[in-house]
Amino acid sequence: MTTTPPAPSAATGAAVKAADRAHVFHSWSAQGLIDPLPVAGAEGSYFWDYDGNRYLDFSSQLVNTNIGHQHPKVVAAVQEQAAKLCTIAPGFAVDVRSEAARLIAERTPGDLDKIFFTNGGAEAVENAVRMARLHTGRPKVLSAYRSYHGATAAAINLTGDPRRWPSDTASAGVVHFWGPFLYRSPFHAENEAQECERALAHLEQTIAFEGPQSIAAIVLETIPGTAGIMVPPPGYLAGVREICDRHGIVFVLDEVMAGFGRTGHWFAADHFGVTPDLLTFAKGVNSGYVPLGGVAISAEIAATFETRPYPGGLTYSGHPLACASAVATIHAMAEERIVENAAEIGETVIGPALRAMAERHPSVGEVRGLGAFWALDLVRDKETREPLVPYNASGADNAPMAEFAAACKRGGLWPFVNMNRTHVVPACTITAAEAEKGLALLDTALDTADAHTA
Amino acid sequence: MTTTPPAPSAATGAAVKAADRAHVFHSWSAQGLIDPLPVAGAEGSYFWDYDGNRYLDFSSQLVNTNIGHQHPKVVAAVQEQAAKLCTIAPGFAVDVRSEAARLIAERTPGDLDKIFFTNGGAEAVENAVRMARLHTGRPKVLSAYRSYHGATAAAINLTGDPRRWPSDTASAGVVHFWGPFLYRSPFHAENEAQECERALAHLEQTIAFEGPQSIAAIVLETIPGTAGIMVPPPGYLAGVREICDRHGIVFVLDEVMAGFGRTGHWFAADHFGVTPDLLTFAKGVNSGYVPLGGVAISAEIAATFETRPYPGGLTYSGHPLACASAVATIHAMAEERIVENAAEIGETVIGPALRAMAERHPSVGEVRGLGAFWALDLVRDKETREPLVPYNASGADNAPMAEFAAACKRGGLWPFVNMNRTHVVPACTITAAEAEKGLALLDTALDTADAHTA
Repeated sequence: MTTTPPAPSAATGAAVKAADRAHVFHSWSAQGLIDPLPVAGAEGSYFWDYDGNRYLDFSSQLVNTNIGHQHPKVVAAVQEQAAKLCTIAPGFAVDVRSEAARLIAERTPGDLDKIFFTNGGAEAVENAVRMARLHTGRPKVLSAYRSYHGATAAAINLTGDPRRWPSDTASAGVVHFWGPFLYRSPFHAENEAQECERALAHLEQTIAFEGPQSIAAIVLETIPGTAGIMVPPPGYLAGVREICDRHGIVFVLDEVMAGFGRTGHWFAADHFGVTPDLLTFAKGVNSGYVPLGGVAISAEIAATFETRPYPGGLTYSGHPLACASAVATIHAMAEERIVENAAEIGETVIGPALRAMAERHPSVGEVRGLGAFWALDLVRDKETREPLVPYNASGADNAPMAEFAAACKRGGLWPFVNMNRTHVVPACTITAAEAEKGLALLDTALDTADAHTA
Repeated sequence: MTTTPPAPSAATGAAVKAADRAHVFHSWSAQGLIDPLPVAGAEGSYFWDYDGNRYLDFSSQLVNTNIGHQHPKVVAAVQEQAAKLCTIAPGFAVDVRSEAARLIAERTPGDLDKIFFTNGGAEAVENAVRMARLHTGRPKVLSAYRSYHGATAAAINLTGDPRRWPSDTASAGVVHFWGPFLYRSPFHAENEAQECERALAHLEQTIAFEGPQSIAAIVLETIPGTAGIMVPPPGYLAGVREICDRHGIVFVLDEVMAGFGRTGHWFAADHFGVTPDLLTFAKGVNSGYVPLGGVAISAEIAATFETRPYPGGLTYSGHPLACASAVATIHAMAEERIVENAAEIGETVIGPALRAMAERHPSVGEVRGLGAFWALDLVRDKETREPLVPYNASGADNAPMAEFAAACKRGGLWPFVNMNRTHVVPACTITAAEAEKGLALLDTALDTADAHTA
């Protein structure tokens, strides 16, 4: 509707919710059991409903509004591009598409200088897998348990969390292995160096038994996101890179969630000095103001499709409105030092505060993260590390986490919650004062989790 | 960039193209062999380059700009929504998302009243297949040769044109059958009634041999689009509906290309009085001004996910900017009688003109279509119906079609070309005068095709 919106009121909010329940089918939900909050507006680190409640957004929605809500420069860029050229087919050359690709290529590590644009992260992963299979001529792809790569067929099969189960096809050519995660070590390691060494040995052995000549790609989130923000130990990603090189396997890093400032660098790979062959992105590239994702492609893989057609595409590849918002986002992030802000807030405010909470709260088993990308691993018992709720819990089993989330919301904090974890993933633009306010609310809400400890 | 764009000039166009070739990886292309036209702007039925060339767009880009380029009401709606709320997670209720869902549900046939939003057509098909498999508990999906359903893993496996081949996984649970197509009848039929009867018998037999209890869905384009605009004979879709009902198979109609006015009705299914269980859409829903697609879901299938979570989703499901553009598009289409215009132009201008060309040109084997959705099937010989170029031709083999396309462009007409066909798929807003102008250019360009006839 292009008419003036009705003034926020409880009645309007109820009408918006009723209209939603009449016709909107929601992601990842039992449609009859949800109670979606009607949102009236958003700005910076906050959004608000029709009842006068403002929420400090510690989730960045789905960890995508890295630049915060309604950044004026990005809003203006969308409006200006809308006036100029909303859409054009992928076969043409367009100024904003070229410029977005250039700005992204300038920031991606190494020689990842060709950009294939998609509408989002799942399609980016789909295309990375296709490129790897065609580049190598091999069928299998390896990915990690404790991962999320998207919900289209190839992407969901790569995913290593329970969201894969209902859509799993055992014949998708995907083999899952275990990545490093010292706190819940699959390898019974006692320190990071040992975890790294054993994780690499496990990967090597898996490759040996699957047959290296049958493996097209290893796909990893640089730092696994929704699955728990497990920062890999020093040397792990470099080790995977070396294994890939040795076996002619394409190394794909999925930076859909970790990329574009989230970790305090433009890309999470920058923390580790590692360059993959393909890097997938979405979310932070334009904070989701317009749907956009893509794959950054190495010179070697791009060369494979120099005279042989690349057999993939989509109507909205390099969508002008999406590209214009990416150009404005990247410029704003650079001009306003938003990536640096994420790094500083993480190091000086979020990290110290969360570690202090871990001292005080018996429910906080581990604090992990960096930048604006942190996880609290909540437990029933710090000794046994038993998760506060069972893996993939729902209903009554999940009550402790549901209570925790409700407590956050009562306080005016919108949390990110997954299984037995809460993630602190605010906008990368968050100020120290906002972060401190949110952390105080989180601190209070953790009392509800403490009540469920042994 | 939010700066003022440089004035159109040949030098600027060359710079835009050079910037594109430096960093943009294009869909469906050999990257070293393409020469993308730099586009400076677009309006209504036209777009133009930096050299002063204006093109009458007979392709609607990729058959998506049903409302034409830069419709002022849709541009304004995008700008207003950008100022208000660019993005919000799918879990919330938002006014424009609810309103877009309502307007779509009002127009879809039967009880397809719940709308799951995606970013585009491929994701819509992916989710329709997932819904069908979970609703039935069955693994296989049937789709037709001569079809296109998108390029993500499930969607490309459903596709029945050569774009599937490089990404094909024989284990994807897809079985292809033949739909009706009298001009190149797979069933050696002599008239539409016989083609219909034999196509239904073929489908029945395929189901019997695949095992009806193993088949989750039949997925069909209501009128196959890129594959050739083969309008199904009377009774065919009703027959498929009856077969699906008899075997408990979910009937999915893919209206990504045919929907939202393209055929002179809101949905192509309206021509046949058939209601599927799931209907996929994208493109025309908002003319692609912002990436958007979705699935319209029957009451019965929605009920399956009432208390059981639907295991699929995406960060940008129901994206506010995309939904706002859909709301404005649907209102504008209704207010300006754009669907009716497509019907009238097809019946009074395009159809008669194309049929007259078929009389005059030895290269025009058949004219098929309705609304703003027409195909010319080009042949070397009207008697044998040998296609003007071989199936999936490239390089020298494809020269007759390349020459035809070049002739169109020289005249200022941007054609849609696929294999041995050109499709006349202009904006549904096209005026009679514009259509006549484009048809005259097409008529002239067909002389190049005639030169290759026997």
